[in-house]
Amino acid sequence: MSVETLSAESDFFAPRAAIDDLLGEFLTQKAHSASVPGQSALALLLRDFLVGGKRVRPLLCVTGWHAAGGQGSSAPAVRLAASIELAHACALIHDDIMDAADSRRGRPTIHRLLAGHHRLPSMAERFGAAGAILVGDLALVWSDELLHTTPMPDAHRTAVLRCVDLARAELIAGQHLDLLTTGDLDVSVETALTVVRYKTAKYTVERPLQVGAALAGGGQPVMDACSAYGVPLGEAFQLRDDVLGVFGDPDRMGKSHLDDLREGKCTSLIVHALRAAGPAEAARLRALIGDPHLGEQEAAEVRAILTGTGARAAVERMIEERHRQALDALASAPFPHGVVRTLEAVAEAAVRRTA
Amino acid sequence: MSVETLSAESDFFAPRAAIDDLLGEFLTQKAHSASVPGQSALALLLRDFLVGGKRVRPLLCVTGWHAAGGQGSSAPAVRLAASIELAHACALIHDDIMDAADSRRGRPTIHRLLAGHHRLPSMAERFGAAGAILVGDLALVWSDELLHTTPMPDAHRTAVLRCVDLARAELIAGQHLDLLTTGDLDVSVETALTVVRYKTAKYTVERPLQVGAALAGGGQPVMDACSAYGVPLGEAFQLRDDVLGVFGDPDRMGKSHLDDLREGKCTSLIVHALRAAGPAEAARLRALIGDPHLGEQEAAEVRAILTGTGARAAVERMIEERHRQALDALASAPFPHGVVRTLEAVAEAAVRRTA
Repeated sequence: MSVETLSAESDFFAPRAAIDDLLGEFLTQKAHSASVPGQSALALLLRDFLVGGKRVRPLLCVTGWHAAGGQGSSAPAVRLAASIELAHACALIHDDIMDAADSRRGRPTIHRLLAGHHRLPSMAERFGAAGAILVGDLALVWSDELLHTTPMPDAHRTAVLRCVDLARAELIAGQHLDLLTTGDLDVSVETALTVVRYKTAKYTVERPLQVGAALAGGGQPVMDACSAYGVPLGEAFQLRDDVLGVFGDPDRMGKSHLDDLREGKCTSLIVHALRAAGPAEAARLRALIGDPHLGEQEAAEVRAILTGTGARAAVERMIEERHRQALDALASAPFPHGVVRTLEAVAEAAVRRTA
Repeated sequence: MSVETLSAESDFFAPRAAIDDLLGEFLTQKAHSASVPGQSALALLLRDFLVGGKRVRPLLCVTGWHAAGGQGSSAPAVRLAASIELAHACALIHDDIMDAADSRRGRPTIHRLLAGHHRLPSMAERFGAAGAILVGDLALVWSDELLHTTPMPDAHRTAVLRCVDLARAELIAGQHLDLLTTGDLDVSVETALTVVRYKTAKYTVERPLQVGAALAGGGQPVMDACSAYGVPLGEAFQLRDDVLGVFGDPDRMGKSHLDDLREGKCTSLIVHALRAAGPAEAARLRALIGDPHLGEQEAAEVRAILTGTGARAAVERMIEERHRQALDALASAPFPHGVVRTLEAVAEAAVRRTA
């Protein structure tokens, strides 16, 4: 398969079918070649779990390969991208256990699915969580297998592996900081942004671009440009997510406004509001955020405070600023022209989206 | 560092200090270079967790390197061995969550430690489990970093990585089958032995030997000999564990007899007894095994049935048979003479141990 230079947002999505085919074939083959009873079911469970994901990270990996001037067949970049998606599946499956989440992508989470299969109701929940820990671990192990069987020049391997290992450790550090600060409304703006930077900006945008670029042998200027574009854009993406989580159209988002608020997640939006609010409003916010019984009326009240304190406008400015930084970085990035156009379109879509 | 040919059980343990030093230095360096708040604490938590382990798998990895005629510095074998130990830490930490275990190596388990640190008692248990999932994931990610930074000839890399990936997937398949069958006393001897084969024999003995051998470029006859020795010895090791779990000296074992029985784990010992027992004894066994309130008197009753039905003697014969198979495999293995002596001593220790 030969891939032309990228030149539009549609080109960004072009490798999606190849990535999905590879993941489907890999996991089907795992199911067929299983040698231990029950192993085949785990492979099929993972295959079903992967259906419907946006594939942002693997698509950015392939884009990074183009950005560094990747030549010839894109098959190795697609394989590496699929590896990134399987590691991400581990992160999601484990995250869903940690959050005790019931659904993901419109279907029951893995731990709920497995709990439903157990013959003894009294043990079902524990069995579901235990099984989902294993399914997540297996996704990471099979991600490694795809990584280790991606053909790559020996001269590029060290950089690819270093970047993959770093990305995974950074995500975990970000998740851990998120866990430490959930329920704590007194975190600083800096801490809230550190969570965003590690959990989303680096993990979702910067590192996937760099992993793909490293596969193509990208030098330091290419790697630096991936960071200069990826970190602010990734932060803008997550800040947009925070805003949509409270102000977005629930029908378009596919989830209620209430989840983020009930969970007590201290987003930049909330941190800003708490700093700008008077004592009465701040006390009201503290009472509402993290309340597991918070309803639509209270959510409307939170929205009014977030708007009234100027927190929403402040976060919109943060998004604009980061969008601008990302575009500036692209303007001087040593990427092929078509890749620049594609990444401009990706930035626009990430920041302007309504769901 | 140059390592002489192995020639006794003491030589088996010789690399232990180097493995421990490397793990300690690696995790201390991770703690010092942490860039995200909380990350340093995770590194130190892992470093403390590793203290006191037996290091069977990493030591077998170094032995496998010798078995395949590894020459020159053993530093790469030690690094690879340390990588295996960190992946094992992930398995243990996640296993302890799945089993809701309170202690490991005489200290609280990671999820209990983390739960104890949380400021809100109502969220402590969930926080502990969530944090421990992340600590386990981090151990696996850092295991990969050690793996990926182990210097190895390009010609040997594919075999090393394939063996590592396979070992990890096999362990998970074994743990999953164990999970599926826990509480089910009607599993076949074959299924009980499949759990043993994947969770212990392959993962603890065969694969570590092969990973080390692959690093030294061991050919198919060496790999086959690792299997021919490792699988039966690993099975014997686990069968001995099953016997000691019910008949061993609790003071020497460092744990009560009651844990295995209360958990309802369907070991080969239990499966044999259920097949050999009359209806009354079988019904009694079914009532006792898996009873969370089982006491010392009931444990004594179980021991009497296991002995009276001949199950204990049958499992002792299975151990002897596998010990013999392992020694026969060694007798014709293409290993250096000193390695054969060492692995004979390892087999003897694994099978004859009393704790």
